[in-house]
Amino acid sequence: MTDALSSWNDGAAKSAIVDFVARVTTKGTKEYVPPTERIATFDNDGTLWCEQPMPVQGFFLADRVKQLAERDPSLKERQPFKAFIEHDHETLYALGKQGLLELFFGTHAGMTEEEFEAIAQSWFDSARHPKYGRRFTQCAYKPQVELLDYLRANQFKTFIVSGGGIDFIRAFASESYGIPPEQVIGSSGKLRFETEDGHAALLKVPELGSFDDREVKPQNIGLHIGRRPILAFGNSDGDLAMLRYTKSGAGARLALLLHHDDAEREFAYDREFKLSPLAEALDKADVYGIEVVSMRRDWSAVF
Amino acid sequence: MTDALSSWNDGAAKSAIVDFVARVTTKGTKEYVPPTERIATFDNDGTLWCEQPMPVQGFFLADRVKQLAERDPSLKERQPFKAFIEHDHETLYALGKQGLLELFFGTHAGMTEEEFEAIAQSWFDSARHPKYGRRFTQCAYKPQVELLDYLRANQFKTFIVSGGGIDFIRAFASESYGIPPEQVIGSSGKLRFETEDGHAALLKVPELGSFDDREVKPQNIGLHIGRRPILAFGNSDGDLAMLRYTKSGAGARLALLLHHDDAEREFAYDREFKLSPLAEALDKADVYGIEVVSMRRDWSAVF
Repeated sequence: MTDALSSWNDGAAKSAIVDFVARVTTKGTKEYVPPTERIATFDNDGTLWCEQPMPVQGFFLADRVKQLAERDPSLKERQPFKAFIEHDHETLYALGKQGLLELFFGTHAGMTEEEFEAIAQSWFDSARHPKYGRRFTQCAYKPQVELLDYLRANQFKTFIVSGGGIDFIRAFASESYGIPPEQVIGSSGKLRFETEDGHAALLKVPELGSFDDREVKPQNIGLHIGRRPILAFGNSDGDLAMLRYTKSGAGARLALLLHHDDAEREFAYDREFKLSPLAEALDKADVYGIEVVSMRRDWSAVF
Repeated sequence: MTDALSSWNDGAAKSAIVDFVARVTTKGTKEYVPPTERIATFDNDGTLWCEQPMPVQGFFLADRVKQLAERDPSLKERQPFKAFIEHDHETLYALGKQGLLELFFGTHAGMTEEEFEAIAQSWFDSARHPKYGRRFTQCAYKPQVELLDYLRANQFKTFIVSGGGIDFIRAFASESYGIPPEQVIGSSGKLRFETEDGHAALLKVPELGSFDDREVKPQNIGLHIGRRPILAFGNSDGDLAMLRYTKSGAGARLALLLHHDDAEREFAYDREFKLSPLAEALDKADVYGIEVVSMRRDWSAVF
């Protein structure tokens, strides 16, 4: 028998996953879940791909700011643009996740959805991770790609529920994770419907519509999916509401939390990462019934 | 060869559908669209099922108001509750679609999503249409159910994009149309995430989140689906922005508009229906390249 989760080491985490899937897919048992209800939601940054030394969207935004500064050199002297150009992470992180998102939506205002998609895809074709030297889409975690495939092979429907920009994730999620755009939920800017010369389009407006973090994650799951996931996977306190929402449903449920404790193969961090700290979720994992996955211990390969 | 669209009469509308599907699904041609991009969006009230003498959600709301009035008889003398109890359509329609929606979200405040779903499903099990005497879920149009099946057989992904309440539609769309909850977009109330005794849930808040009508339909398509449909079907001016957004995409596109001109088998109405008039879309269908479907001429059966 081939092992669909070959990058997962034998241990508590892998057993929890394999046992859970067996229980919910075995007909005639009390815990059986019909395929239409097999909803699995995954955070993206730090859960499905690397978010260090900064989330990938930050690299994209930095390149965008550099482009804008070529047209308007005064940006080089204005914050927060200056911080991007100078890789001044401390100033950037002081903006917080929401501040960075607002900047992200601000720098793409006036574009149509199709224009943004073309820009993002061309960036993904060329930009590379500073530590690994690979394209960012190749910074997806191999064990997680296996897990997504394994869940879909067991008739789960897989979704992303991320604090990152929804359109940014949609530009690569099909290729990297096999998740189509309509199964991506994320932070979103507002859109304006316009017609010009008989042609209708959606234009990006520089205004935050939804900041998909913490309690907003389950709220957006309610809006987009309309029912509770039976499995959820996160890596920070920003995912805790989603994990608890998942676990609070009736019947078998699995909530997983990735702990980055692997400085050698990836990065080791938790409570000190300012943009997306992991503290309460780790401290209270037992109380909330969350299964902690150790990157070092539970994954035989990372990429 | 069996005809998947047997409730459609031969004619321009049926030909437009069959030709379009053949064009976008034939590999190697210029108009070929890969399955992942075959997105089709349908309005619900008046497009997939009967919306006369009032939209089904109105009947549901009337029964809910009656229940509330049993507990609090003063509601019987207060508008707009009085109008519901007395079937006073004129007063109700004066509230407009948005006013009725706000009342709808107001009368379900404090419920969890699961509680609302149970109430809606039990209502659908018993309530009946005043003209047809059938359960409302049996008031779906047979030609449209055939069309949805036909599109899915051709690897389209089918969505509902409705002005009606998103959770109300989700309660029956799987059974009636084969459309799962996560492929239903509609007007939505806000949700609040709460934990009580360690149990996390989403509660309905009496506040309108999104009124999914007119230009908001394409905006919500952008948010939920992330790309343009290649086929859209509506029946009122509230659908016009969605139809034009669909038609404005590159490549082959089909926009369809159902005209209720069949007083004998269903109802005949267009510009005079106050809640959801059809005027501009009908007058400018040619200009916008919209295919008008006549219920009387194009459908051999309605239910």
